[in-house]
Amino acid sequence: MNIMVYVEDLAKKAKHASIILRTIPAKRKNQALENVALSLDKNRNSIISANKKDLENGNKAGLSDALLDRLALNDPRIDGMIQSVREIAALEDSVGQIEGVKRPQGFTLEKVRVPIGVIAVVYESRPNVTIDAAALCLKSGNAVILRGGSEAIESNRRLTLIIKEALKVSGLPEDAVGCIDRKEHEGVHWLVKQEGYVDLVIPRGGESLIKKVVDEATVPVIKHYKGVCHLYIDEEADLGMALDVVYNAKVQRPGTCNALETLLVNDKVSEVFLPMVREKLQKVQLRGCARTRKILPRIDLATEDDYYAEYLDLILAVKVVDSLEDAIGHIETYGSNHTDGIISQNINKIQKFVEMVDSAVVTVNSSTRLSDGGVFGLGAEIGISTDKLHARGPMGLKDLTSYKWVVRGNGHTRE
Amino acid sequence: MNIMVYVEDLAKKAKHASIILRTIPAKRKNQALENVALSLDKNRNSIISANKKDLENGNKAGLSDALLDRLALNDPRIDGMIQSVREIAALEDSVGQIEGVKRPQGFTLEKVRVPIGVIAVVYESRPNVTIDAAALCLKSGNAVILRGGSEAIESNRRLTLIIKEALKVSGLPEDAVGCIDRKEHEGVHWLVKQEGYVDLVIPRGGESLIKKVVDEATVPVIKHYKGVCHLYIDEEADLGMALDVVYNAKVQRPGTCNALETLLVNDKVSEVFLPMVREKLQKVQLRGCARTRKILPRIDLATEDDYYAEYLDLILAVKVVDSLEDAIGHIETYGSNHTDGIISQNINKIQKFVEMVDSAVVTVNSSTRLSDGGVFGLGAEIGISTDKLHARGPMGLKDLTSYKWVVRGNGHTRE
Repeated sequence: MNIMVYVEDLAKKAKHASIILRTIPAKRKNQALENVALSLDKNRNSIISANKKDLENGNKAGLSDALLDRLALNDPRIDGMIQSVREIAALEDSVGQIEGVKRPQGFTLEKVRVPIGVIAVVYESRPNVTIDAAALCLKSGNAVILRGGSEAIESNRRLTLIIKEALKVSGLPEDAVGCIDRKEHEGVHWLVKQEGYVDLVIPRGGESLIKKVVDEATVPVIKHYKGVCHLYIDEEADLGMALDVVYNAKVQRPGTCNALETLLVNDKVSEVFLPMVREKLQKVQLRGCARTRKILPRIDLATEDDYYAEYLDLILAVKVVDSLEDAIGHIETYGSNHTDGIISQNINKIQKFVEMVDSAVVTVNSSTRLSDGGVFGLGAEIGISTDKLHARGPMGLKDLTSYKWVVRGNGHTRE
Repeated sequence: MNIMVYVEDLAKKAKHASIILRTIPAKRKNQALENVALSLDKNRNSIISANKKDLENGNKAGLSDALLDRLALNDPRIDGMIQSVREIAALEDSVGQIEGVKRPQGFTLEKVRVPIGVIAVVYESRPNVTIDAAALCLKSGNAVILRGGSEAIESNRRLTLIIKEALKVSGLPEDAVGCIDRKEHEGVHWLVKQEGYVDLVIPRGGESLIKKVVDEATVPVIKHYKGVCHLYIDEEADLGMALDVVYNAKVQRPGTCNALETLLVNDKVSEVFLPMVREKLQKVQLRGCARTRKILPRIDLATEDDYYAEYLDLILAVKVVDSLEDAIGHIETYGSNHTDGIISQNINKIQKFVEMVDSAVVTVNSSTRLSDGGVFGLGAEIGISTDKLHARGPMGLKDLTSYKWVVRGNGHTRE
């Protein structure tokens, strides 16, 4: 089948499934998720052997060890998937929640939470996203079309079949979870153009993948391009706290989008603070501005590109600034509107920073790594948005719903 | 100046103004709105004389009387604008509203309402939209770029100058309200591509205007294409109520997007109900299916196109259906997901209709004309959305805001 026809067919089937899913109560959706968990457990061997094919192909294709590691599935990782599905089943379902008011004219106006419909998730190597995204969409009553990385195609195909079986056993439409298990690049191209069938696209991955989706999509997209996160160390900061926070933000898990990428230090404390940073972050490569290098002469000079960079690695750009305003200006210019923070004991400066920095998440005296759906108590995270419409920052289950208005009258008309 | 450069320049200025506007408290925004109201009152003559030029040009260009009437300003219409600005000033400002929680880890998590940033509003003839859109955006802390119809260019230019003067007097940035006062069609084209400066585009007008905006935009768009609104008259309807509701929905203001366009009547009551409709809606031209014409032989046959049509006129498509399911199926096929309703006394059928019909607004035993921001108590309406992301149905002031997350810690890091 032609790839365009194939994708359109998937989208139509998902749309049809979404109409059924819309009215399925939470209890039955949770039962289906439990069946997915049981089925994952029962099918460990077939999952691992499908994954082995991906790993062999990846090896032949010369994938890096890091990428092969992200791709690999084993028993502990399948345990993780199962646990994740059960955690998602245990979350609150916002579908059907009603905010109602009686209007003065006498009719009742209800705002009822409903699923969005069909969600397309486009992502890269990790096969566990297949399970997480499917479970989150199912829990929120949405049909989903998955398009993972081509290097994980065997694993994703197998995982999708397991979910479909569990749906069948649970009496839910199998087409509620679809998977583009063909490698043509045009698969994404046609998927993001299915206006009328697909209601939302969530791309997860590198900047180039996301740019491609945004450029080609006619369906709405929620995304973040990258996380160039900043911490500004104010002259009135508790420098001990600042050091611990900088260390955590940069080192605890450098490959994540909420890790620190650029450190801004007020000139008045730079001579004390920068040597502390050099001492504590020994395994981190620092790249500094000219003023930073007056204090730490042995580090590399940061270029303009360094300040735009999302390293996702143990590298940190450093800049000495004259004032809070300069720090805010730097973030406005080089930032990605993801997560940016201030370390200060001065409430006026904190307030100014919080108001002026236009990021999805602003942190005060705390690590940028706290910017996370789990930490925020949203349950599970389908993604992070640096857009300002619909959802901003970490996106939880409720962000996978929309609402409809219901007017209940008794012959009410417009005056 | 080249039109592309001109639009980009407007967008940059608006972006800059939006950064200032972000932190202006409600009191000062309201004062600025009161200054707009005073300034409109003081400048009646210059507004009316600018409008006269538009009317003269429109006359020469052969605009229809209806269009000239929509374009015309006079003292009562300026009174209306002034009143509208004062009503908007009196609304609650959601910017700065905080939902806060203490997380178990000990930090405070706040979700703070913030303006979206820069909103572009693209619309057609009525000059009062210039004032309404500017006032709503200003009230919600957003900068706005207005692009009205070219036939109203003199009026819109004059009105924008009046707003800018009022902003200046109020100490707010004049660039918070921009107006594309050039006629080139490319104005819209470049406006909707200002990603990075413009955060949202709201097109208001006919389907072709909106399609153009959606096709060309890289900035997110919130819109509704059209309102093909249905009422389904169930066999268990109170037919007297049904008749009053149908009359109100079709006749009270047929030119609006929430007016009734297609009437679906259950076969079991069609022989009684359709003659009642014919009798009461005498000034309405009916177009029916073959079964309708067996009962009302003198009306025209409805074509497939009639069921897709948004007449905005005293014309009504009629179809006899066998069941609730057929009615839902018809709405799924021909509807526009705007506003659709059921008239029935059977709560099970009502519930099924409410759950299965995927429209922004679903009405029960009431007129589709109730689907309105004012009637819903949203204060003022910037538009109606049939999208499912961000806002759905009538959009009020709060829908012109986003939120940011603020994490307030005391050295908190990620475990």
